[in-house]
Amino acid sequence: MSKRDVTKVLLDENEIPRQWYNIVADMPNKPMPFYSPMTGKPATPDDMKAIFPMELIMQEMSADRWIDIPDEVREMYKQWRPAPLYRAKGLEKLLGTPARIYYKYEGTNATGSHKLNTSIPQAFYNKAAGIKRLATETGAGQWGSALSLACNRFGMECTVYMVKVSYQQKPYRRSFMKTFGADVIASPSNLTNCGRSILEKDPDCTGSLGIAISEAVEDAATHSDTNYALGSVLNHVCMHQTIIGMETKKQLEMIDEYPDAIFACCGGGSNFAGITFPFLADKLKGSKVRAVAVEPTACPTLTKGVFAYDYGDTAKVAPITKMYTLGHDFVPAGIHAGGLRYHGESPIVSQLYHDGLIEAQAYGQKSVFEAAVMFARSEGIVPAPESSHAIRGAINEALLAKESGEEKVILFCLSGHGYFDFSAYDNYFEGKLEDIEYSEESVKTSLNNLPKIEE
Amino acid sequence: MSKRDVTKVLLDENEIPRQWYNIVADMPNKPMPFYSPMTGKPATPDDMKAIFPMELIMQEMSADRWIDIPDEVREMYKQWRPAPLYRAKGLEKLLGTPARIYYKYEGTNATGSHKLNTSIPQAFYNKAAGIKRLATETGAGQWGSALSLACNRFGMECTVYMVKVSYQQKPYRRSFMKTFGADVIASPSNLTNCGRSILEKDPDCTGSLGIAISEAVEDAATHSDTNYALGSVLNHVCMHQTIIGMETKKQLEMIDEYPDAIFACCGGGSNFAGITFPFLADKLKGSKVRAVAVEPTACPTLTKGVFAYDYGDTAKVAPITKMYTLGHDFVPAGIHAGGLRYHGESPIVSQLYHDGLIEAQAYGQKSVFEAAVMFARSEGIVPAPESSHAIRGAINEALLAKESGEEKVILFCLSGHGYFDFSAYDNYFEGKLEDIEYSEESVKTSLNNLPKIEE
Repeated sequence: MSKRDVTKVLLDENEIPRQWYNIVADMPNKPMPFYSPMTGKPATPDDMKAIFPMELIMQEMSADRWIDIPDEVREMYKQWRPAPLYRAKGLEKLLGTPARIYYKYEGTNATGSHKLNTSIPQAFYNKAAGIKRLATETGAGQWGSALSLACNRFGMECTVYMVKVSYQQKPYRRSFMKTFGADVIASPSNLTNCGRSILEKDPDCTGSLGIAISEAVEDAATHSDTNYALGSVLNHVCMHQTIIGMETKKQLEMIDEYPDAIFACCGGGSNFAGITFPFLADKLKGSKVRAVAVEPTACPTLTKGVFAYDYGDTAKVAPITKMYTLGHDFVPAGIHAGGLRYHGESPIVSQLYHDGLIEAQAYGQKSVFEAAVMFARSEGIVPAPESSHAIRGAINEALLAKESGEEKVILFCLSGHGYFDFSAYDNYFEGKLEDIEYSEESVKTSLNNLPKIEE
Repeated sequence: MSKRDVTKVLLDENEIPRQWYNIVADMPNKPMPFYSPMTGKPATPDDMKAIFPMELIMQEMSADRWIDIPDEVREMYKQWRPAPLYRAKGLEKLLGTPARIYYKYEGTNATGSHKLNTSIPQAFYNKAAGIKRLATETGAGQWGSALSLACNRFGMECTVYMVKVSYQQKPYRRSFMKTFGADVIASPSNLTNCGRSILEKDPDCTGSLGIAISEAVEDAATHSDTNYALGSVLNHVCMHQTIIGMETKKQLEMIDEYPDAIFACCGGGSNFAGITFPFLADKLKGSKVRAVAVEPTACPTLTKGVFAYDYGDTAKVAPITKMYTLGHDFVPAGIHAGGLRYHGESPIVSQLYHDGLIEAQAYGQKSVFEAAVMFARSEGIVPAPESSHAIRGAINEALLAKESGEEKVILFCLSGHGYFDFSAYDNYFEGKLEDIEYSEESVKTSLNNLPKIEE
């Protein structure tokens, strides 16, 4: 029996990485600095102190290749890490492909997604800085769940501004956060200036991620015992996720494999960063691995956006970032992969894409759910709609390998499970899902409102 | 650092047991044979052939101590087995107990509970016997999900009769089964004689587990290509679950531990059997381990039932069994732990209880959810309402140890997660949960209708 003929590859908990990998150290072109929305100038650590603890600000601005993971954080990682790496034997058989497909499964923890990898260190550093409460936003609910749990473990309070349409449509995610003691608020709310001004104009507003971010940032900036936590986009968030890729590399080494192509869904970019950056470190030294970011056609930030400075939120209170963007006013259609409905993108992922070091693909949600059901029925795990974008990309690659007869090695990140997304599956089975394209017109309008930054 | 100072204990997939343990071989008094509802005489293998494959009938009647696990089944177990054993450090700290608490977590597989341990071999043996379709019942949905997935993996059809009130209240469980291609039918239905006769009398009947079993058995008995599969109660089901306890024993040995007391929730008995039988094997040879079955006060089969022959279902088509029972007409109140709402009990577990070899406790659901939330907040996993009964028992034991200052070793089975049960948690947080007691009057009436069997 070949050592590749495995169902899953596990690591001992002592093999959880001891450091996070900071790809900035190795990038030929560094990501551009943040700009302050107040001053219009490059943000200083002091500008960010109102909402972040100094340790995270330092990580955000660091060019060090390795950052130590605190013992307390590693101890908590042990509950579910190292995460299993699976060989997708069932899916390979279904596709009849000569490719070997592997997936790293990040859904085995209590919150069901990779988000807990960063919520735990974020809560840790805030707690150490004497912060009592964290405020954040959530769309699909994965990030809000992860931060609720992390705050609970460190004895902190947590306020989650949940996009109102999700608050109404996903009562179970709401209950999940409440189980961990979080205060969950439908956004826009009456608790912030930003929320009130939006409700004045439009009392029936169902919210957006951009609005919820504005509310959470305002909450944090106006309460001295409260900070803000973001679940993706930022450099330190991407860095925390690199333990995914480092573990995966070790697991593949154990069975003498190295991927030809890696697929990950891409919203703000942290899950993509997590699985690919440790492999991109090799690519920057000459390896040929391909890293493919998969996004929805309803919100095609990399494939159809522009590389420009833009606000991270609707109310223009979050830092200005050079990134691929569809414009901060762009409101994507209500697709089921709520975690991928963000107008912008990680500055690091954006720079890598701009430099031609990574690729991007976009798919409609019907074809994404078709892939999700193929995966569920052949592998026995119900994937989250977000993660199913990566599955779609990997399946297409495996079908190409079938055509060409190549024995490719394909890796993807299964970033979470779909236990909270069955209404989406219902819609798919009932033939109600449409492949929603973004509106070129509304992106054009939105891109007219980019801030003017003099670099 | 003591080797007991772990977060979790993992085993390699090669350490998945190669045989199931059949406790019947070691019991001082064997469980009584089944009786046929048709003849009123001890059931022969031939009587059972209409709904079960011969391999499972042989297992059901076997007194062999060890039964080989087929390679194909072990191969599928590898997707999530061996399951992790956790040290409940967070819970110990919260309780301030000197006891060391461990839990075996069976919720890491796609269906989120221990039920997959038996649905896979059941589908395997039926497939090998040339059966095309399996029919079954489901209440809470855990068993239906597990059988749907297993049938899907073996290319078989699956028909699930789902108790109508659950069908309406748990749309996500229904969608889960559909994702794996199962045909899910609200019971009572118009598809069976049993269902039709009930609907004629009561068109608004919301169903019960007893009725759904009758429908599934009738479906299997009247279609030659179709068999019936049961998720608990039967001897072979209990036996398939013993891999839980065998793995746990090995995991505890690795850190030099042996439990003083083991807690498991008990509905039909298979989860209790799974974690405790391999330890009871020691007890039958002189060890002092205590095994405690925990049930709801709304359906207190062991603690308030009688040890007698009774039907397994409402329509009296399933085999007659000597067991603890509240009477086959007893309909328990609609508590959230749907998996524990069964009037009867495994004949083996019943015999062991009758012989004083195991203990039983009953708790109301308010105190069970209090334990569930304590566990979630200290351990970071949201438990299923069923499993939370075991948590309640373990917490009470740990508090007793605190009073007496004893360093006890407590083990419990966390049989599943609560991702599909957030409406129950919502009710708890909103103060809407009541501690429902069973009605003595209705049990008394129900016990008047036991069948008369001449032993």
